[in-house]
Amino acid sequence: MSDLTIALDAMGGDFGPPITIPASLEMLAENPQLRLIVCGDKYQITPLLKNKPYNLTQRLEVIHCSQVVAMGDKPSAALRTKADSSMRKILDLVKEGTASACVSAGNTGALLTMAFYVLKMLPGIKRPALVTAIPNADGHKTFILDLGANVECDEHILHQFALMGSVVSEKNKLDNPRIGLLNVGEEEIKGSDKVKKAAQLIRQDKSLNYIGYVEGNDIFSGKTDVVVCDGFVGNVALKSCEGLALAVVKSIKTLARENWRSRIFAAIALPMFKKLYKQMNPDHYNGASLLGLRGIVIKSHGNASKDAFKYAIKEAMNEIRHQVPEKIGNRIETALTDRS
Amino acid sequence: MSDLTIALDAMGGDFGPPITIPASLEMLAENPQLRLIVCGDKYQITPLLKNKPYNLTQRLEVIHCSQVVAMGDKPSAALRTKADSSMRKILDLVKEGTASACVSAGNTGALLTMAFYVLKMLPGIKRPALVTAIPNADGHKTFILDLGANVECDEHILHQFALMGSVVSEKNKLDNPRIGLLNVGEEEIKGSDKVKKAAQLIRQDKSLNYIGYVEGNDIFSGKTDVVVCDGFVGNVALKSCEGLALAVVKSIKTLARENWRSRIFAAIALPMFKKLYKQMNPDHYNGASLLGLRGIVIKSHGNASKDAFKYAIKEAMNEIRHQVPEKIGNRIETALTDRS
Repeated sequence: MSDLTIALDAMGGDFGPPITIPASLEMLAENPQLRLIVCGDKYQITPLLKNKPYNLTQRLEVIHCSQVVAMGDKPSAALRTKADSSMRKILDLVKEGTASACVSAGNTGALLTMAFYVLKMLPGIKRPALVTAIPNADGHKTFILDLGANVECDEHILHQFALMGSVVSEKNKLDNPRIGLLNVGEEEIKGSDKVKKAAQLIRQDKSLNYIGYVEGNDIFSGKTDVVVCDGFVGNVALKSCEGLALAVVKSIKTLARENWRSRIFAAIALPMFKKLYKQMNPDHYNGASLLGLRGIVIKSHGNASKDAFKYAIKEAMNEIRHQVPEKIGNRIETALTDRS
Repeated sequence: MSDLTIALDAMGGDFGPPITIPASLEMLAENPQLRLIVCGDKYQITPLLKNKPYNLTQRLEVIHCSQVVAMGDKPSAALRTKADSSMRKILDLVKEGTASACVSAGNTGALLTMAFYVLKMLPGIKRPALVTAIPNADGHKTFILDLGANVECDEHILHQFALMGSVVSEKNKLDNPRIGLLNVGEEEIKGSDKVKKAAQLIRQDKSLNYIGYVEGNDIFSGKTDVVVCDGFVGNVALKSCEGLALAVVKSIKTLARENWRSRIFAAIALPMFKKLYKQMNPDHYNGASLLGLRGIVIKSHGNASKDAFKYAIKEAMNEIRHQVPEKIGNRIETALTDRS
């Protein structure tokens, strides 16, 4: 049985303790085995714990940190100058084994850099990857990686992303998840050299259920369980979709000013579309994981609501229960042994 | 005054003559100076011209072609074996100066390969680019290139895309169009080496109004007039958006089965969303141009409706009037002279 102790960066994100503390208390109430170590400014945190039930607060430890990594901080500067930040502390707690996982809604670049430095890579892993799950048209989830941890990846890194994606989608009770490699067409002759070489490596790996090339639209089509791409492409794809969704919301609002029919449409459509948008939008679909490290790191979206932050904690519990880093380590070891 | 003679591939696309011929006749009716050379199977084309007004048909010449490039044909095979295809013929007509531009809704890869072979590049241009205009949230258009003509581009190619994008967006009556370089973040330190080097070249080019890095969401935000990226990234970004839009349509349909409120919503939302989708969807927004060649080549979407095919012909007229290839040639010449 894994130890369900999770370290939380209480200060990360746009709202900090007013969102992270109520989310923590609700998660403790819903999960009797959960323990939380909340890191951050105790002067902001402790007032929010006042008069809360003892059966919750006894499973919530506060560790005071004098520093906060700001959203605008440069990753290298944060690493160098913010050793007593809440973001750094949660990673140290995972490193020393006090916590089994950590969650932050803070600065993504700083979190990546610090996690890489503090936790180190699993043996054999070349680069970490940021992965998220996107609900697709079939009502299932598609995992996409990398989302921006690595802008430049060679074919070996892409192959490792396929292995890591396979493990992480198995945690969603998927047997033998389908792996698709993102390309500009489905024909074997298409694509960059790097993608063609990666296709060869992934196809040769018998531990993977490789279905071939997929295209941008397949992120949402339900055709594949995992979409593998470099961080440049993954980041642009998801941000483009976010841009489209926002533009549609804006168009509906403009339409609303046209005539009474479109006003009625907008009044009904806008809240429903916003709901759909939240369901679909990768950025709002909370809980991206940083894979390939010797520990579990979950990145919550910066403007996550209480429910979204709870979802990120659930993801951390999910990864602890499914021993994601251990499984990734085993898969990589097997792949390296098979090759040699 | 430029000669408004345009060669059309009557056979291209999912529907062929039943779409392309009515579109041609309507364009002739609306534009008294327009002349069309329609290439394809005369046995399918001429019956559609029967009993049509002489003032239209006298400006429409039919050239019979015994071959058709199919949607599934490999580009290299089409080039080698289909010398008497309608797609090849329209390019030959532009090459020999009989037509000022050509339009096809056929196989994109084959059109690119044939156009490259028949028309050749403008002096100094390294690679052609496929560009389209996307209506953005501000009600203006954003031009994005490349969309998949080149999966691998170095910084010099990206710089040329910036120059070509600037010329093509000037045809939309834009002075000094804003050029953005697509990246994973707006900070100067982010991105791949290739993108950083391209940023340097574009910034140094005083003929360009470079605004810096833009992100995926800016394709729709109205922040920039031109988005420059390699063909791999551009293709994935647009296809991802198409996938999202389709998934939303599917979600609305599913919602419609839930209860009476959502049924009403769906009944109103679906047609309006489909309309929005057509406006937004880059693939349906018709008339992508192939830039950098010694002639004007417009690619219409394969499943274009009559109106969409008319739009593609309009785009061809637009590029003839604005002498796009000549202007691109001049800009590249100036850029090369400045550098030496």
